[in-house]
Amino acid sequence: MDEKIRVGIVGYGNLGRGVEHAIAQNADMTLVAAFTRRDPGSVKTLNASLPVHALADIADFQNDIDVLVLCGGSKNDLPEQGPALAALFNTVDSYDTHAKIPEYFDVVNKAAESGGNTALISVGWDPGLFSLNRLFGEAVLQQGATYTFWGKGLSQGHSDAVRRVQGVKAAVQYTIPVADAVEQVRSGSLPSLSTRQKHTRDCYVVLETGADAAQVEQAIVTMPDYFADYDTTVSFISEEELKREHGAMPHGGFVIRSGKTGQGSTQVMEYSLKLDSNPEFTSSVLVAYARAAFRLNRQGQSGAKTVFDIAPGLLSPKTPAQLRKELL
Amino acid sequence: MDEKIRVGIVGYGNLGRGVEHAIAQNADMTLVAAFTRRDPGSVKTLNASLPVHALADIADFQNDIDVLVLCGGSKNDLPEQGPALAALFNTVDSYDTHAKIPEYFDVVNKAAESGGNTALISVGWDPGLFSLNRLFGEAVLQQGATYTFWGKGLSQGHSDAVRRVQGVKAAVQYTIPVADAVEQVRSGSLPSLSTRQKHTRDCYVVLETGADAAQVEQAIVTMPDYFADYDTTVSFISEEELKREHGAMPHGGFVIRSGKTGQGSTQVMEYSLKLDSNPEFTSSVLVAYARAAFRLNRQGQSGAKTVFDIAPGLLSPKTPAQLRKELL
Repeated sequence: MDEKIRVGIVGYGNLGRGVEHAIAQNADMTLVAAFTRRDPGSVKTLNASLPVHALADIADFQNDIDVLVLCGGSKNDLPEQGPALAALFNTVDSYDTHAKIPEYFDVVNKAAESGGNTALISVGWDPGLFSLNRLFGEAVLQQGATYTFWGKGLSQGHSDAVRRVQGVKAAVQYTIPVADAVEQVRSGSLPSLSTRQKHTRDCYVVLETGADAAQVEQAIVTMPDYFADYDTTVSFISEEELKREHGAMPHGGFVIRSGKTGQGSTQVMEYSLKLDSNPEFTSSVLVAYARAAFRLNRQGQSGAKTVFDIAPGLLSPKTPAQLRKELL
Repeated sequence: MDEKIRVGIVGYGNLGRGVEHAIAQNADMTLVAAFTRRDPGSVKTLNASLPVHALADIADFQNDIDVLVLCGGSKNDLPEQGPALAALFNTVDSYDTHAKIPEYFDVVNKAAESGGNTALISVGWDPGLFSLNRLFGEAVLQQGATYTFWGKGLSQGHSDAVRRVQGVKAAVQYTIPVADAVEQVRSGSLPSLSTRQKHTRDCYVVLETGADAAQVEQAIVTMPDYFADYDTTVSFISEEELKREHGAMPHGGFVIRSGKTGQGSTQVMEYSLKLDSNPEFTSSVLVAYARAAFRLNRQGQSGAKTVFDIAPGLLSPKTPAQLRKELL
């Protein structure tokens, strides 16, 4: 067996913890250290003996790490860390601000090329595995339509939006695909579906003492971009119930491509995920793509890449001959 | 726009006809000719003006064709045509004798390398898109199990086996996944399932005049490899009913990967196809991979490849920048 792929984690929250778990499941990888902007002594890793270093010192570890998994957020962390770290290391990240991916790609690409590194951006399940299925769907069925449904799942962005409403002490938001819409799509009938027809949104809210429930509800359901275009349900619950019933981070969804071939045969391709833990799954995808980043860099292919650029065989610890024999 | 990719079809049956249909849906491709071992004058193509040539003359067309789609069968045609044509052209085929893929890969690889050509083997949905999902499943969820279900669908191999039984005039066989088994797998309970528990087989048989129905049924349900390990139902129908009700070639199935991450979170990945026309869908996959074969060859990557070796972006007519903007 070759030497193990040496991985570093940047940012140790839910995603970083998931990466630590996932690397323990991959025999060809070893976790070298975690890096944090916080006080390294305050970070509690799963394996207490995992070294935790200040992110400021990361350049000292260029000879010790083959690939970094960037576990920061897309809003504040990655726009800065992505290019800065791609100049020094091979990287994988889960940048998920869809509209800004082209410009993020460009800055990371420039940085990665300058350092001769390979940087895989926007890896996870959406963007990521769902993107791949959107691509496979339209490449194979040129005449048709692609539908993406999310949920049932906890949306961090929408939960944060609810928490910013005045009078809200704590909250979670679940995105729920409309079952009837999914069935219409699966039937191959190529329906036109509005935003409201595809998903509903359920909010569970703990009020601040003295807050006006009706006012809070109104502020949520009319919030532009986040809720105004959806049928939104707001339930008020106690802080205890929130902790007891809403601590998990399930998610998932569907990508469905429906198209016509020949004289009008209906063909339906569907990809779906049902995840007990969104961050643990995303972490597992990141770790598989970390293997690909390392291998691509060994092949001399530097610069920024996305899941579209990665031959799937690079994700597996198995050899090409094994894959052909066992999985083809 | 670049010049169109010039495609040739080898073997004009259901699959070849599907390729002709599919190329008409792909604006960046043009169909140059079909090649046949039959009398070219006897082949009725969809577009009557498509040139049909004798396969024996195909070497004369090396300068006119960028990639050949091989539409012959895995049993008799491809073992010979695959390597012979990969020595002369870029090729894509749907070789589907799973157990013999490694040796087929080796002979095609040698031939393709000798000619500086790129040969994609075993492309379609199984092997093909299902294989990819088996790979993604185990690469992402290292701890878990993968389940493949086929159907409901018409199986050519099993239909042929029924037709070989003495007293059978005509027949079709449908493979049907057991709904309860699929649900168990979807639940993430990681069940152990025997062959009998996963699929049932339904045969619709037209008897020869004077044949003994009980004898025919017994010969079918006890047939080793094909039926003995399954719960098989045999229905006797008239030739008219067979033509009226069983002329289509629907198929499909499911690849489900269920695994555990973190402290035991259950994660389920599912890929499914529901196809009105199996050959038309397989043809559409072949045509998308023909684009990849052409592009890989332009990049100087010759030899035999499988779906595991193909970066998904190569399948799409869109540019990498378009894909990042529109589909990521």
